[in-house]
Amino acid sequence: MAETLRVTVWNENRHERADPAVAAIYPEGIHGTIASFLAREPAWEIRTATLDEPEHGLTTAVLAATDVLVWWGHRAHAEVADEIVERVRTRVEEGMGLVVLHSGHYSKIFQRLMGTSCSLKWRVGADKERLWCVNRSHPITRGLPEHFEIPHEEMYGEPFSIPEPDELLFISWFTGGEVFRSGATWQRGQGRVFYFRPGHETFPTYHHEMVQTVITRGVKWAYSGVHIPEGCPRSEPLEPPAD
Amino acid sequence: MAETLRVTVWNENRHERADPAVAAIYPEGIHGTIASFLAREPAWEIRTATLDEPEHGLTTAVLAATDVLVWWGHRAHAEVADEIVERVRTRVEEGMGLVVLHSGHYSKIFQRLMGTSCSLKWRVGADKERLWCVNRSHPITRGLPEHFEIPHEEMYGEPFSIPEPDELLFISWFTGGEVFRSGATWQRGQGRVFYFRPGHETFPTYHHEMVQTVITRGVKWAYSGVHIPEGCPRSEPLEPPAD
Amino acid sequence: MAETLRVTVWNENRHERADPAVAAIYPEGIHGTIASFLAREPAWEIRTATLDEPEHGLTTAVLAATDVLVWWGHRAHAEVADEIVERVRTRVEEGMGLVVLHSGHYSKIFQRLMGTSCSLKWRVGADKERLWCVNRSHPITRGLPEHFEIPHEEMYGEPFSIPEPDELLFISWFTGGEVFRSGATWQRGQGRVFYFRPGHETFPTYHHEMVQTVITRGVKWAYSGVHIPEGCPRSEPLEPPAD
Amino acid sequence: MAETLRVTVWNENRHERADPAVAAIYPEGIHGTIASFLAREPAWEIRTATLDEPEHGLTTAVLAATDVLVWWGHRAHAEVADEIVERVRTRVEEGMGLVVLHSGHYSKIFQRLMGTSCSLKWRVGADKERLWCVNRSHPITRGLPEHFEIPHEEMYGEPFSIPEPDELLFISWFTGGEVFRSGATWQRGQGRVFYFRPGHETFPTYHHEMVQTVITRGVKWAYSGVHIPEGCPRSEPLEPPAD
Repeated sequence: MAETLRVTVWNENRHERADPAVAAIYPEGIHGTIASFLAREPAWEIRTATLDEPEHGLTTAVLAATDVLVWWGHRAHAEVADEIVERVRTRVEEGMGLVVLHSGHYSKIFQRLMGTSCSLKWRVGADKERLWCVNRSHPITRGLPEHFEIPHEEMYGEPFSIPEPDELLFISWFTGGEVFRSGATWQRGQGRVFYFRPGHETFPTYHHEMVQTVITRGVKWAYSGVHIPEGCPRSEPLEPPAD
Repeated sequence: MAETLRVTVWNENRHERADPAVAAIYPEGIHGTIASFLAREPAWEIRTATLDEPEHGLTTAVLAATDVLVWWGHRAHAEVADEIVERVRTRVEEGMGLVVLHSGHYSKIFQRLMGTSCSLKWRVGADKERLWCVNRSHPITRGLPEHFEIPHEEMYGEPFSIPEPDELLFISWFTGGEVFRSGATWQRGQGRVFYFRPGHETFPTYHHEMVQTVITRGVKWAYSGVHIPEGCPRSEPLEPPAD
Repeated sequence: MAETLRVTVWNENRHERADPAVAAIYPEGIHGTIASFLAREPAWEIRTATLDEPEHGLTTAVLAATDVLVWWGHRAHAEVADEIVERVRTRVEEGMGLVVLHSGHYSKIFQRLMGTSCSLKWRVGADKERLWCVNRSHPITRGLPEHFEIPHEEMYGEPFSIPEPDELLFISWFTGGEVFRSGATWQRGQGRVFYFRPGHETFPTYHHEMVQTVITRGVKWAYSGVHIPEGCPRSEPLEPPAD
Repeated sequence: MAETLRVTVWNENRHERADPAVAAIYPEGIHGTIASFLAREPAWEIRTATLDEPEHGLTTAVLAATDVLVWWGHRAHAEVADEIVERVRTRVEEGMGLVVLHSGHYSKIFQRLMGTSCSLKWRVGADKERLWCVNRSHPITRGLPEHFEIPHEEMYGEPFSIPEPDELLFISWFTGGEVFRSGATWQRGQGRVFYFRPGHETFPTYHHEMVQTVITRGVKWAYSGVHIPEGCPRSEPLEPPAD
């Protein structure tokens, strides 16, 4: 029997409401599209949360009932309250998985977990992105082809100011001459973090079958199954003192 | 000719003023003792900074003129201003090295760079600490004996909530039955970070020759020699567009 | 439905036949005991193979039908034919998982995959081993207690000449004053490798419930589900040449 | 005063003698060119060794007097005697640094240290290579520009069958659409290993100033300064037995 996995898909949900071109691609919001394809997993419970809900939809109760959180944000990173960011960070350390997508690289929560600015080069243009898989037996990538392409995407280029990943899964090639570490994992406390690059709001990237496969597997991989509250306890000796 | 290296030793400097037993061990403060042994390096310029100075002694000018910062804090972590913490973090990302000592594991700056609480087990008791060197050709450890001992130290035990180190250098054995990853490195942006465990204020640990050697080398290793401001620039293509 | 997983448990099987004390602990051989507890997984197919079988029981057909290989050897490492070692190594690179136990640290196959001698300190004595779990959300360790003990074991101590692990899971504390990285993972090509320290032949370690749990999970983790033959192909450009 | 560093540059030295086009680029052999630019370091002692010398020029005495070995080979990997490969591997584990260049990825010594085949994609064509620096404060890369180009090079592409690097320094972009982890480090015992991709024999790559800088720094980084013979000793307890 497949494991039940409770996923919350968080989205800023501003571009979709302000820009008809984005709304045409994602009529139910980016979160709606992502929730839809994740819901194909029979035993998963999917909910969504967005910036303009009270507490950004990330109440203590919601986080306590979330095994893996997916994060998409872009133009309103600064509007995410610091208190909520710290709440999410603590929950990650306790065991909640986190899948950060695309411009989420510059979100407070990703910066807070990485310890760096997570800055990079970028360009919205005519670039094609080709993602090369550099680890072909990881739970996220096993059985995937050596590479796959996204016809048009925003370019993200190195240097990408992140800590050396625990596992590097994808490196992207861009038409304009850049490369990027576009899929990578880190652990923070009990929390497993996966960053995956594609997904500019003006392109139909989250309708791409391979992108959907990678995100679905990323969520599965990020599930830790534990919830261990943080503490810094005084501890009695386990061995008798030597005389 | 040896490289000039500008070091700032930061210390909370509270125990030394409140507790005569600590003052007896470190009459010039923990920072004074550390600055003294670092000053044996002929080409290094050493200064100190403490919590109760304006801006905790860590003005923008001081940080700009610091290649490597050494950090000792314990009971007053909460008094370090968030604004200064972020200033230090940014400077680390730009290339300043950071050597975090002992109870500095729970400082805001270390937590902020690691992305975790950095919690652990602890006990002030009669423990002996034996540090085993698990990497004997690293610039910090090369030529050291396989292990060395500190007769009495505060115990720190696993689990230690840190990201998997880039390099694990020391593992400590304690009389009471615990182990600890007591020397480890991480990179954050251009900044090189070294954590080294020993140094409870009630023991003369910073007078221990081997501890002095490790800290001195840690400072040297953490020196990056670069200062690269953060940025997230739009970037023109390097290759002509394909038609 | 649980995944079918084909496991081969390889054992030197010499101590058990030469030493009645070992035979009393492991009447069906160490491989027999390990195969028994792995067989509790309903969908797994378990077979065993031993040194004195033709081709050490590791024919090309057996390896092709093995998803994960478990390895225990001690006094007869030198009798394992180089040709078979290379056959196993190639199969690991193609995607077969490998779980190396205890004195298997000095087996040709582990040395060949690590690139080092894998030497360490050791002592058969009265030591108690306490294994501290330093990563509590890994598929091998999630939900385990912070530490568990084995009343009597052979001591293995640092320095352990291995490449820096991809993931460090356990550190052991020994009564005699040593520490050891006793559970660690590495990837080699598509093959996932897990080393787990406990299991001296004169102690009933493989009857220890926690040890059985860790090995069972190690096998599950090491399963990659891929079989990708090695090659170094000439490759046509994917992009048209620029003029 | 700069540290004395004894470097041996090893080259297969076959292309240069068989192919006038290669000889025109490297009249003194690839080893001669590399030795020349390394010799600019005032305190370094540089020697060379080639395949067709007795013991391939890598006698026990030569290796004992070598701090860092540079390796270039291509068409005659199979002619390197296994005994010499094991001699070099042992010396690396004991502390000798190793810098492996270009087609040396498929040398026995690199395969032996990595534990994998080190296979990759390749193409000799009209590709331009652009190397992006993904770690800008490493001793090998500090102060380098974000990227540099080699006008014409053989393409090497992912997947590259290597263990996850300890540190990834460069990622290459190729005109034909591929990417490659073109600069990376690993530790093996006390030995520090740096792989650097560029250097096909039909292009003047080792006359490229940036390539020379990276190789020179790679040699410097790989120097460990230790020589620790391997051993697996029985060890007396450091602590008295508990009763």
